[in-house]
Amino acid sequence: MKIILIGSNGTVGSKVGQALKEFGHQVIPVGKRSGDFQVDIANPASVRELYQKIGEFDAVANASGDVAFAPLEQLGAEQWALSLGSKLMGQINLVQQALPFIRTGGSFTLVSGILSEEPIRAGVAATVVNRAIEGFAMAAACELPRSLRINVISPTMLEESKDAYGAFFSGFKPVSGIEVAQAYVKAISGIQTGKTFRVG
Amino acid sequence: MKIILIGSNGTVGSKVGQALKEFGHQVIPVGKRSGDFQVDIANPASVRELYQKIGEFDAVANASGDVAFAPLEQLGAEQWALSLGSKLMGQINLVQQALPFIRTGGSFTLVSGILSEEPIRAGVAATVVNRAIEGFAMAAACELPRSLRINVISPTMLEESKDAYGAFFSGFKPVSGIEVAQAYVKAISGIQTGKTFRVG
Repeated sequence: MKIILIGSNGTVGSKVGQALKEFGHQVIPVGKRSGDFQVDIANPASVRELYQKIGEFDAVANASGDVAFAPLEQLGAEQWALSLGSKLMGQINLVQQALPFIRTGGSFTLVSGILSEEPIRAGVAATVVNRAIEGFAMAAACELPRSLRINVISPTMLEESKDAYGAFFSGFKPVSGIEVAQAYVKAISGIQTGKTFRVG
Repeated sequence: MKIILIGSNGTVGSKVGQALKEFGHQVIPVGKRSGDFQVDIANPASVRELYQKIGEFDAVANASGDVAFAPLEQLGAEQWALSLGSKLMGQINLVQQALPFIRTGGSFTLVSGILSEEPIRAGVAATVVNRAIEGFAMAAACELPRSLRINVISPTMLEESKDAYGAFFSGFKPVSGIEVAQAYVKAISGIQTGKTFRVG
């Protein structure tokens, strides 16, 4: 399969790219500044342009999207706009703009995260966005044409991110990037749709 | 209790107002154009002004918020912005802007809906927003200061709305507005927080 991988340079994305290649897939690495192509997922025009450049493909796998962290009482309009614009609408853009280009039977694999189920301090926007994207996949799966599928991977904290984020996730059992990558492979290779695959 | 009721003129809101009065509460009716006070929940400044005018209170109950309905392939940026701005950020505004005014031990009761769990055609944005607001309540409940509580009421289609919306909800068992209003009373009067109460 020809698979567009957004966020290919990130902690999760790099493992997903490796795993997909091991399974014999052609991976098109995309990033904000790295990769073979660049995209700003928050900008529908940028996303459309990406797909126009690449042409036909079989799958979009996303491992990118920003969200703001701040205590509820300090979470301002700009931080909400960033969170909703990037990790939520960014991923929705990746799906909606792909529809004229993606091959019949293709798939979308998006990303949420453990905070959709387990809040942490200052993580309200992350919980909101993660829940929203899981709902998007569930509902969009029922409307997508041409046997297209859509799923979400929801990882807990990665072992690889323990040094950077461990203080925010005290007591959370971390998962390896490889396990998260396997979930992407399962979602892309499988037959399920509308699902959230929780990893960790 | 002194309870601010947003959307007091709507199908759900009018029943909530009646029920709260029957339980002996003081209800301040608020609407976009009706009620004792007017507010545009999508505008944080308008929400803040509302609370400044009213002063101290014990609870906010919301039965308002717009969301766009369109097939996934036609759901454009404006419709997403309307949905996220009104039913999602509008309700978040109602909570965040209230923090300087609401009394210790007070509560917020927001609204989602059956589409958070059961998608209907052209309802993707509603599913996204409803899921998001349920996540917001879950996470915000863990961060709210001064024993403030927050819950969500998720009603299915109302009997009173059958003529208007029944075609979109074929086979859904409707629920009476009075039952939905009881759920608001339960959320406001009770001790639970961070929960979504499903009605129907």
